[in-house]
Amino acid sequence: MRILGIDPGLQTTGFGVIERDGQHLRYVASGTIRTTRTEGVELGNLPARLKILFEGINEVVERYQPETAVIEIVFVNVNPQSTLLLGQARGAALTALVTNNLPVAEYTALQMKKAITGHGRAAKSQIQEMVKRMLQLPGLPGTDAADALGLAITHAHAGAMLHKLGQESTLNRKQHAMLKGGRAY
Amino acid sequence: MRILGIDPGLQTTGFGVIERDGQHLRYVASGTIRTTRTEGVELGNLPARLKILFEGINEVVERYQPETAVIEIVFVNVNPQSTLLLGQARGAALTALVTNNLPVAEYTALQMKKAITGHGRAAKSQIQEMVKRMLQLPGLPGTDAADALGLAITHAHAGAMLHKLGQESTLNRKQHAMLKGGRAY
Repeated sequence: MRILGIDPGLQTTGFGVIERDGQHLRYVASGTIRTTRTEGVELGNLPARLKILFEGINEVVERYQPETAVIEIVFVNVNPQSTLLLGQARGAALTALVTNNLPVAEYTALQMKKAITGHGRAAKSQIQEMVKRMLQLPGLPGTDAADALGLAITHAHAGAMLHKLGQESTLNRKQHAMLKGGRAY
Repeated sequence: MRILGIDPGLQTTGFGVIERDGQHLRYVASGTIRTTRTEGVELGNLPARLKILFEGINEVVERYQPETAVIEIVFVNVNPQSTLLLGQARGAALTALVTNNLPVAEYTALQMKKAITGHGRAAKSQIQEMVKRMLQLPGLPGTDAADALGLAITHAHAGAMLHKLGQESTLNRKQHAMLKGGRAY
């Protein structure tokens, strides 16, 4: 099962692809999609930036052929305008996933941090360190890529647990999500 | 010049297509894209609902072949969670427009109301009535469709004014937007 994790953001969206083979996890790819440094695209040009994000995710899906996707549940920001921008970025990212016909699961950052480090208050650097260790990477992934890989690992663990229970085929997606405390559609 | 107006919303997105021929405006089509009444799609299934919205706009673009698009600038809601959902819906709608390579202009509801009725506090019914009159419709359009048509008319008026000035080719999109008080990217 190949899983694509997405940590959505308007400026930088992290992605991470892993392969789950039974209990074993294998790193496939990770990186970021940036909407701020493309020539000819102004920062205020939201439509153009959403297009970069959408097409960036399409490219990742095309290249790495994931079978399922997982995206972080975002929260309301202290700045309502930022909330609105983040919402639009996440909308573009989700649209890219569903138009590629990928099933989409969702977890909060808290759920991901708990799954990866054992506690919800983990620092960015701890996520990077644990993701490096779990996927036996030669170096630390960037923070956004690490979050995305963390989401993919979280989802892989949920899947592995279900697999062990031998119930994967009989559970629907809602039960699947409830079982692991996550939220899937 | 064929213009597509979009009034974005997660539950209901209004669309309206008009044709501007010099000073004359002609109605082409209007309607709504609903994400709440599709069989097999739960209300809580945001990815699936965004997909319906994205594909609905694609279908409208394919059928009516607009050359340019205009979308309402949305604002922060009293309920932050609603803001986040509206943002995601608008992100999916914008993604549909830009991936169809349509230039996208933006106006606030206030700007649209002023352009259509002369004052910013106009009621929904006044927008419907004025849109009906301006496009010589046999009946009142629905409120969401009327808002979308109102946005398209607002943009058409801006274009007509520029046309009269004979400056359309020499103004860039930012100047175009500044001239008419709207915001274009």
